[in-house]
Amino acid sequence: MSPPRAAVVSIGDELVLGQTLDRHGAWISDRLLSVGLETVEHRTVADDGHAIAAAFRELRDRAALVVATGGLGPTKDDLTREALAAATGDRLVEDAAARQAIEAWFASRGRTMPASNLSQARRPFLASVLANGHGTAPGLRVRCGDGWIVCLPGPPREMQPMFEREVLPLAAELATAAPVRTLVVHSFGEGESRLAERIAELMDRDRDPSVGTTASAGGVSARLRTRGGAEAVDRLERAAREIESRWAPYVFGRGEATLAMAVGELLVEQGLTLSVAESCTAGMLGEMIVSASGASRYFAGGWQVYSNELKHALLGVPQEMLAEHGAVSAAVAEVLAREAATRSGTTCALSITGIAGPGGGTPTKPVGTVFVGCFDRRRGGSTRRFLIPGDREVVRDRSARLALMMLRLRLMDLDETPLLWEVRP
Amino acid sequence: MSPPRAAVVSIGDELVLGQTLDRHGAWISDRLLSVGLETVEHRTVADDGHAIAAAFRELRDRAALVVATGGLGPTKDDLTREALAAATGDRLVEDAAARQAIEAWFASRGRTMPASNLSQARRPFLASVLANGHGTAPGLRVRCGDGWIVCLPGPPREMQPMFEREVLPLAAELATAAPVRTLVVHSFGEGESRLAERIAELMDRDRDPSVGTTASAGGVSARLRTRGGAEAVDRLERAAREIESRWAPYVFGRGEATLAMAVGELLVEQGLTLSVAESCTAGMLGEMIVSASGASRYFAGGWQVYSNELKHALLGVPQEMLAEHGAVSAAVAEVLAREAATRSGTTCALSITGIAGPGGGTPTKPVGTVFVGCFDRRRGGSTRRFLIPGDREVVRDRSARLALMMLRLRLMDLDETPLLWEVRP
Repeated sequence: MSPPRAAVVSIGDELVLGQTLDRHGAWISDRLLSVGLETVEHRTVADDGHAIAAAFRELRDRAALVVATGGLGPTKDDLTREALAAATGDRLVEDAAARQAIEAWFASRGRTMPASNLSQARRPFLASVLANGHGTAPGLRVRCGDGWIVCLPGPPREMQPMFEREVLPLAAELATAAPVRTLVVHSFGEGESRLAERIAELMDRDRDPSVGTTASAGGVSARLRTRGGAEAVDRLERAAREIESRWAPYVFGRGEATLAMAVGELLVEQGLTLSVAESCTAGMLGEMIVSASGASRYFAGGWQVYSNELKHALLGVPQEMLAEHGAVSAAVAEVLAREAATRSGTTCALSITGIAGPGGGTPTKPVGTVFVGCFDRRRGGSTRRFLIPGDREVVRDRSARLALMMLRLRLMDLDETPLLWEVRP
Repeated sequence: MSPPRAAVVSIGDELVLGQTLDRHGAWISDRLLSVGLETVEHRTVADDGHAIAAAFRELRDRAALVVATGGLGPTKDDLTREALAAATGDRLVEDAAARQAIEAWFASRGRTMPASNLSQARRPFLASVLANGHGTAPGLRVRCGDGWIVCLPGPPREMQPMFEREVLPLAAELATAAPVRTLVVHSFGEGESRLAERIAELMDRDRDPSVGTTASAGGVSARLRTRGGAEAVDRLERAAREIESRWAPYVFGRGEATLAMAVGELLVEQGLTLSVAESCTAGMLGEMIVSASGASRYFAGGWQVYSNELKHALLGVPQEMLAEHGAVSAAVAEVLAREAATRSGTTCALSITGIAGPGGGTPTKPVGTVFVGCFDRRRGGSTRRFLIPGDREVVRDRSARLALMMLRLRLMDLDETPLLWEVRP
């Protein structure tokens, strides 16, 4: 028999119609996982009694614990109570304690209870009422065969405390499996399919820890998951190290780590400082660098040389060079990086000049063409040319990350490592 | 018979386990609604062939159009193709055109196709392949009884164009209800409850168009919604103008408009140019400005004067001023803005200096204290002091937007308009 699982139901017209983003599903699943209960399905349905009841009936066969949010308010749209009664073949009765609690809630605010709120005191005969310390909607919990259905109010500040108090202990009791442990390894600069190939057998579906990859603008991450006590932590650590070694040098950190943090740590370790000269990114690289707390230890600042006039006036790029090679060129990227370091007095500097689009592309330099310059006092300057896919926003974001990765490789003495989207001469 | 509906399936372990928030469900439902097709259910399932196939089988009975995202990648986790074949009782075959397209995608990037990507060329025999202009995963579409199942790749920049091209026209054909029309009005610089008060009766639940407000880091927006043909468009337009007049001068645009675009338009109209000097934001303001396409017409660039040394060395802030007033002061903000304009030769300049946190706060200048300087050649310089709530990231983002709003008010000759979070002397 497979271990007990959970399912989550989010109820509300505005959610299913896409007018409001449901965040409860992910929040609840993440909390359940922390006590060892995996969610097998989220379902979002409208304020429709039949749809809610159908969700309860179908999901209780798939999950030992069904957690629903929403539809417990006092209006005609709020149909979760009725649907729970229908799904469990029960009838609704008034709960005396719940009625008292609602009346007390209004009384304590100097108001009399509107008649509509009476409906909130009703429960399926076999269900228990869960007290709400932050609003008028009580929760509901009912035993259903071997499992449970729990209904929570929709507003987060009512739902979350009730979940922690009433649902999490129940989930921990139901979970026969040990707590789930997860670990995420982040990389940047190599493509997802190539990275997946390097760890192919670790990604086999029957492996423990399980390993999956996800790609985003920020790179490719491996997500590891296993269950158990201290030995599971060791297992996770060993697998993470294996991936880190196979993905080196593109790996830059785990969990909450960012590429900017990783570069910052290397700079601090090596006692170096950094400045930037940004053309098409116009500040995105600097912003990414200072998003790491403590950046003032190594980051001085820099220049947003968006116009050609400022490239010349502020960082001394020769007019003839701009005329001959164009602002988007290796020659200009090299001068920008060197002059940024020289004029700001830092040991290292990064520069970016490129065509983010949508306009500005030419046959020899299409949209997405970006030159990154990297300078440090010890080794001098170098540049790389990239052809980056994506829209204006994505090209700029990836340019900034490629610049950080270029500096990281240099600080690791791995300057020759190829990078994704690079155009080698 | 009830009108045709849609259902949305999001596929991925990381989604169902709550490690990543699913945004596709809401985005797709919102787009479907725009052509009159309502979504009846979202379902999120794991990378599990049986669960995906069960979702397809159950939802095709409830919906004329089932749209799924994810699970079309090249790895062993990607099981959507197999599940679609299983749910429709079909077998997988290799699609010659899809294989060619994937090979061409790699070839155009100077790479050879990894063997694992071959799996992406497979489709259920009766399904059509949908071309992917932005990645290697083709989509799939299959007729299923009276309805359709469409599978799209997970990455948003691949999914969204494919959705617009392949799914939206199909949805419009299936929809029998009048299209839903929405319009969004954006504001920045005033609080949500005050703005809601100004349009209270327009927000009554039985009004048509319906009006709701949402607050985000980017400001407060009013979302208007109605159904129908040309007369509905007029109704929406009249209501939007009413809100724009009641929210003036905090309104800056509709729909896809950004504050940076609105400021850019004013600069172009008035023939002005702009530079920046950024301390705590370190480039975020410049980046926000150039996120508006065409920014090169008015934006020259600027300085990221993160360290005090660079404030002095690059923009001439006197050492004594830094010592006496501190880098986070009105005096420094004023010098930074004036010197940025002078040294870059622009007519206008903005400066930001503040304490974004988490460290660095003092009793007189707590975390969130930010000074913004605004200079233009005609009217000279002015500064405003703010106390901005939020974490490091949010404080910086709001600082940059407040700077843009300050310039916008000045360009509209409304310099005296109070702004949210402002600390008046």
